[in-house]
Amino acid sequence: MALISNVEPHRMADAIRFLAMDACERVGEGHPGTPLGAAEIATALFTRHLKFNPADPLWFDRDRFVLSAGHGSMLLYALLHLSGYAGMPMEALRTFRELGSPCEGHPEYHPERGIEATTGPLGQGIANAAGMAVAEAFLAEQLGADLVDHRSYAIVGDGCLQEGVAQEVASLAGHLRLGKLTWLWDDNQMTDDGAIGIAQSEDLPARFRAANWQVLEVDGHDVAAVDAALSLARHDARPSFIACRTVIGRGLPGVEGTRAAHSGKLTRALTDAARQARDWPHPPFTVPEDVAAAWRVAGRRSLPDYEAWQARVAGLPGETRQHLDRLREGRLPDGWQDGLRAFARQAAEQGLAQHGWKTCGEIVEIAAAAIPEMLAGAPDLEAATQHKRRLSAFTAGHRGGRYLHYGVREHAMGSMLNGMAAHGGVVPSGVTYLVFSDYERPAFRLAAMMGLPVLFAFTHDSIGIGRNGPTHQPVEYLASLRAIPNLLVFRPADAVEAAECWELAIAHRTGPSCLVFARQSQPMVRRMAEENLSTRGAYVVAEAEGGERVATILATGTEVALALRAREMLASEGLPVSVVSMPCWEIFEQQTRAYRAQVLGQAPRVAVEAAVRLGWDRWIGPEGSFVGMSGFGASGGEDDLWQHFGITAEAVAAAVRQQVGRHG
Amino acid sequence: MALISNVEPHRMADAIRFLAMDACERVGEGHPGTPLGAAEIATALFTRHLKFNPADPLWFDRDRFVLSAGHGSMLLYALLHLSGYAGMPMEALRTFRELGSPCEGHPEYHPERGIEATTGPLGQGIANAAGMAVAEAFLAEQLGADLVDHRSYAIVGDGCLQEGVAQEVASLAGHLRLGKLTWLWDDNQMTDDGAIGIAQSEDLPARFRAANWQVLEVDGHDVAAVDAALSLARHDARPSFIACRTVIGRGLPGVEGTRAAHSGKLTRALTDAARQARDWPHPPFTVPEDVAAAWRVAGRRSLPDYEAWQARVAGLPGETRQHLDRLREGRLPDGWQDGLRAFARQAAEQGLAQHGWKTCGEIVEIAAAAIPEMLAGAPDLEAATQHKRRLSAFTAGHRGGRYLHYGVREHAMGSMLNGMAAHGGVVPSGVTYLVFSDYERPAFRLAAMMGLPVLFAFTHDSIGIGRNGPTHQPVEYLASLRAIPNLLVFRPADAVEAAECWELAIAHRTGPSCLVFARQSQPMVRRMAEENLSTRGAYVVAEAEGGERVATILATGTEVALALRAREMLASEGLPVSVVSMPCWEIFEQQTRAYRAQVLGQAPRVAVEAAVRLGWDRWIGPEGSFVGMSGFGASGGEDDLWQHFGITAEAVAAAVRQQVGRHG
Repeated sequence: MALISNVEPHRMADAIRFLAMDACERVGEGHPGTPLGAAEIATALFTRHLKFNPADPLWFDRDRFVLSAGHGSMLLYALLHLSGYAGMPMEALRTFRELGSPCEGHPEYHPERGIEATTGPLGQGIANAAGMAVAEAFLAEQLGADLVDHRSYAIVGDGCLQEGVAQEVASLAGHLRLGKLTWLWDDNQMTDDGAIGIAQSEDLPARFRAANWQVLEVDGHDVAAVDAALSLARHDARPSFIACRTVIGRGLPGVEGTRAAHSGKLTRALTDAARQARDWPHPPFTVPEDVAAAWRVAGRRSLPDYEAWQARVAGLPGETRQHLDRLREGRLPDGWQDGLRAFARQAAEQGLAQHGWKTCGEIVEIAAAAIPEMLAGAPDLEAATQHKRRLSAFTAGHRGGRYLHYGVREHAMGSMLNGMAAHGGVVPSGVTYLVFSDYERPAFRLAAMMGLPVLFAFTHDSIGIGRNGPTHQPVEYLASLRAIPNLLVFRPADAVEAAECWELAIAHRTGPSCLVFARQSQPMVRRMAEENLSTRGAYVVAEAEGGERVATILATGTEVALALRAREMLASEGLPVSVVSMPCWEIFEQQTRAYRAQVLGQAPRVAVEAAVRLGWDRWIGPEGSFVGMSGFGASGGEDDLWQHFGITAEAVAAAVRQQVGRHG
Repeated sequence: MALISNVEPHRMADAIRFLAMDACERVGEGHPGTPLGAAEIATALFTRHLKFNPADPLWFDRDRFVLSAGHGSMLLYALLHLSGYAGMPMEALRTFRELGSPCEGHPEYHPERGIEATTGPLGQGIANAAGMAVAEAFLAEQLGADLVDHRSYAIVGDGCLQEGVAQEVASLAGHLRLGKLTWLWDDNQMTDDGAIGIAQSEDLPARFRAANWQVLEVDGHDVAAVDAALSLARHDARPSFIACRTVIGRGLPGVEGTRAAHSGKLTRALTDAARQARDWPHPPFTVPEDVAAAWRVAGRRSLPDYEAWQARVAGLPGETRQHLDRLREGRLPDGWQDGLRAFARQAAEQGLAQHGWKTCGEIVEIAAAAIPEMLAGAPDLEAATQHKRRLSAFTAGHRGGRYLHYGVREHAMGSMLNGMAAHGGVVPSGVTYLVFSDYERPAFRLAAMMGLPVLFAFTHDSIGIGRNGPTHQPVEYLASLRAIPNLLVFRPADAVEAAECWELAIAHRTGPSCLVFARQSQPMVRRMAEENLSTRGAYVVAEAEGGERVATILATGTEVALALRAREMLASEGLPVSVVSMPCWEIFEQQTRAYRAQVLGQAPRVAVEAAVRLGWDRWIGPEGSFVGMSGFGASGGEDDLWQHFGITAEAVAAAVRQQVGRHG
C-alpha cells in the first residue's frame, strides 16, 4: 500500500515512542519496553491495515485490535490518541496511571475509547482476539460479507506465548482456520527475568507451522516489511503469525535491548538523550504538526470503507436491518424467553425429575433455537454435558455451526468466550464439568471486570457424580465462584428453577453468569412456574405447616429436595419448618433488607449444600448449622457417598432438632 | 532387551486388557478405552524398562511412572497387580470404583501402592512427571548418580496434550533438557467427542521437535517397537516424546477404534466376544499361571539394580547416609528454623518495616541456606518477587541450581512443584503475584488432595500494588484459596509474622501452604518474637487499654497495622479496643473453642481486609462490620486507592464507633 503522506513512517512511530516515554517518565513507572519496541509494528498496522473509524469507535464492521501484552498500555493509548479517538486526548496521556485516568496501568475494556479488551494477565488478550475472529466468522455467515468482513489482530509478547492458554488457542485457531486472525509477535528476546533464553529455547515459528498457521518473519522495526507481512496475512486462509524481530525499549540509548527496558524507571536525562539520538526536538507530550497530521489522515483512512458499509446498511431490507441493529445493540430477539417459560411450565406440570446436565442441555437447545446468535460449545464433553444435541458444529468448513468443539482446552474456551462477547453480536456460552472450571477461572475474572455477558455453564456439581472420585467432585467451587465480584452464580434446584435461572442469566447483560447443574437426577421441588421466583435470588419454597416456623432450612441445587424431605420428617414430629431455595446469592444480596429478613426468618437456621461451608455463615449466623462437606470427596456409588459424607435428609433433620432444642 | 520369559508379550498385554474389561464390566462403568488401547505400551514399559521393586514401593531410586490419562485408571491397577504390589491384590480389582476400594475411579496418590500421583484432571500428570524429572536431576547433582539415577515416565492421551499446562511443560522440559523424562503418547485418534479431527489438526510430533524433544513414532500395539523406542529415549539428552499409534479399546469387537470405546458401558456379551476373539478362555479376574508368572518375573526384573543400590547405600560414609536418609524420609535438617527465628528476632528489635515481597524473598533465601533440598522459582518474576537473590539458576547445564526460571508458565510451575513434592527429597516452592495464582489453581487443589508439602508463595496481594490496576489487584483470592480443603493460607502482618508463617508452612508436611505478601511496605506490628504467636492461627496482637474491650478488630496482612492505628485513635477517645491478627484461619479453626472465644471476645467485632467479605461472617457474626472491597480495584497511586476504597484507619474507627453505639 502506498504511503499516505510524505511523513516518514519512522517519525510516525517515534510519535508513539515519545508519548509513551513522556507518560512513563511523568508518573515514574510503567512499561516503556513494549511501546518503544513495537512502535513500528503498531504504525504499520494502524496506518496501513487496521479498518476503523475513530469517529465511530463502535462501528460494527471495524477490525478488532487487542494489545495482549497489556503492560505496554501506553502503546495503545498513544495509538488511539494519534488516530483521533475523542476519548483519548493528550490530557489523558498526561494522567497515565493516575486514579480516574482513562490511561490506566493496563488497558481496561472501553470500546467507546477504542479499548477492545482488558488485558494484562498474559495470554488472555490473544485468546480474546481469537474469540473475536470466531464471532466474525460466525456473524459473516449469518449476515453476509457485505455486513461483516473484518479482521482481528493482537500484538503479543513472549510472555503471552509462554502461557498455556495461548498455546491452546494457537492449536485451536489453526484447526479452525481462522484466516482473519493475525498475531504480531513482538519478538524482542527479552523478558522480565532477562534474555528470553533463560526460560525458552523453543522454535516458535516451527511451533506455529505445526499448528497450521501461516508464519512470516520480518524485521519489526521496518514498517514496510511489517506492512508487507500484514498484506500476506490478509490473503491466506490460515491464521497468520508474524514474527517481528525487535529491540525492546528501542530508542533509549544505553537501555534499549536490555532487561532494564522492560519496566525500568525513565529519567528526564534518559528521555532527553533519546530525543537527541532520534532527532526529536519536541517537548514532552508534543507531536509535531506534520506527524500529527499524518496520523490524523491515517485515522481517517477507512472512511470510504465506513461510508460504503453505512450505505449498504441503509439499503438493507427492513427485516435484515432490524436484525443487524438488534445484534449490534446487543438486544435479544423478541419473545426469546417464551420457550424457556414453556419448558418451565411443562416441567412443573409433569414433575420433570431428570439428570441436571440433561435439563441444562435441553434448555440451551431451546435458548439457541430462539436466539440465533447464541454460540454454544464445550471442551470435549459433548455427550456428558448434552449441550450439542441438535446444534451443528462450527468448523473450518461450516461457519453456520452453533456449537464449537474446543477440544480439551477449557482455558481457551473461557477466554475466547470473553472475546466473542467483547466483539458483540454473539451470545456466547460454554459448558464443562464444574471441577474443570478452575482451568478457565482467569477468564471469569476478566469477564466480570469487563462486565461481559458470558454464559459459563457447568455440570457435575458435587459428590453426586459418584464413582469418578474426588478429582471430579467439586467441593470448594461454589464458594470460590461466589467470591468473584460482578459474577452471578446460579445453582438451580430443579428443572423449573433451571429455566428461570437460565432466563435470568441470558437477560443479564452487564456481567457474566455461572450456571451450575448436577450430574445426578434433580428431583422437582417446584410444581408451580407461573412466576419466576428465582428473580429474587432466594425464596421460601415451602412454608412451615401446622404453625409458625421453628427453624429454616436453606439450600441450593439438589439439596433443596433433600431439605424438603427433612421438612416432611420434621412435620410428622410436629416441628413446622420452612425451606428456602437460594439459587443465586448475589441477587438475593441485592434485595431489600425487609425481603431478606422475611425469607430468612427469625427462627434458627440450618443450611445444606454439598460443598464447603465458606460463605454460608453470612446466612445462617454464628449459631446456625451447616450440613455439607468439610474436605474432598471420594470414589464410590452416589448413594454411598451421600451417606458416607452425612449429607442426607436425616442429617438435616437432626441438625434442625438440635437447633430447636438449643433455642427452644 | 531380551524377552524375560517365553510368554508372548501380547498375552501379557491381554492380561491387562481383560482385567480392565472385567473390572469395568463388573461395576458397570469406567473407561476401558485407555487400558485396552495402551496395554502393549504399558507392557513394554513395565516389563522391559521401568526400574522398580514392588516389594519396596518407596525405593528412593525407582523410576517414576504417572498415568496422566487418569481416567484409564484400570491400566494402572492392573499393572500394579500383575507386577506384584501387595497393596493391589486381585480382590482390590474386583472392587473397582466401590467406596473404600484402593481402585478408585481415578488414581489417588498412594505411593505405598505404586500410585505416584493423583490424576484425572488432564495435563496434570504429565506436568507432575516433569517435576519428578527436575527433582531427580536436582538430587542426582547433590547426591551423585550412584544414589540417584532414575527416569520419569508418563502415559498421556490427546486430552492431556491439548491442555495448556501440558504445552507449557513441553516447552520448558525441552528447554531444560530433561533427558530422563519420557512421555508415551497413546495416539488413539479418539476423544470423548469422537474422532480427534473434530478439534485438532496439529502436527504434534513437529510441535515437540520445535520444543527440542526427541520424537519417536511407533506402532503402539507392537511391544518390541515401543521397547526399542524406550531404549532410544534412554540414550538421548533431550526429553523423549514417543508417539504410539494405537486403537482405542483394542480388543473389543465392534467397539474398538470407535468413540464408544472411550467410556462406553461394557456388557458381558461384549467381554465374552472379546475373550473369544483374542483366544482368552479364562474366567473374569483370572490370569493364566504362565502369564501371571511372566508378570511376576518382570516385576522382579530390577532386583539386581535394587540390591546393588542398597549395597551402595550400606557402604556410604555415615554423614552421606544420614543425609540420604533424611531426604528420603522427608525430614528437614536439624536447626533449619534457627535462621528464620533469628530473622524474626532481629526484625522485632529493628522494627523492620519493608516491602512484603522483600521480606518474603529474604526469608526464602534464609530457608534455602538452611535446607539444601529447597528448590525455589518463579514464572518470570525474579526481580519483582525477590526470590532468586543469591540462589543460582537450575538450568540444562547446571543441575546444582536452586532457583528455576519457569518463564511465564504459572500452571506448569504449580503442577511441577506437585511432582517434585510427590517425588520426595525436595522442598519445592514457587512464587508469583497473587493475582496470577488463578492460572495455577488446579495444582493447589491436587496438592491439597494428595497432601503434598508444597510451598506456594505470592506477593502483590491487594490494591496496595497501586497503579498496575485491577487486573493486578487481587480481591477475591484470599476467599477462593480459603475455600480449598487441606490448604493452609497464611497472610502475615509483618516481618515477624512472615518468618513465623514460613516456619509453620515449611514444617507442615501433610499438605500445601499458600503464603501471601504485600507489595507495599508492611509496617511492624510485633515488637516481640520470643514466641511464635502465629502457631495458633490468630491471637490478640494488642489488648484493649484503659478498660475492658468494647470492640474487637480482626485483620490480616498490612491491615493489621491499620487496625492498630484505628485502635490508637479510639483509645484517645476513651474506647478500649483489642486487635486480633489472624495470619491463618485454618489453624485458628483447629484451636479449642475456649481459645477461639477468648481471642474473639464477646464485644462487637469489626474486620478489615483489603479483599471481599466472603468468609468473614464466620468471625464477625451477622451484626459485625466489614471494611474491605466489594468489587474490583482501580489503577492509581497506592495512597489514593486506600482512600478511594475506604480502607483506612479512619474507616475502621468509624465502623467500631458505630458498632459500639449500636450495642452500647
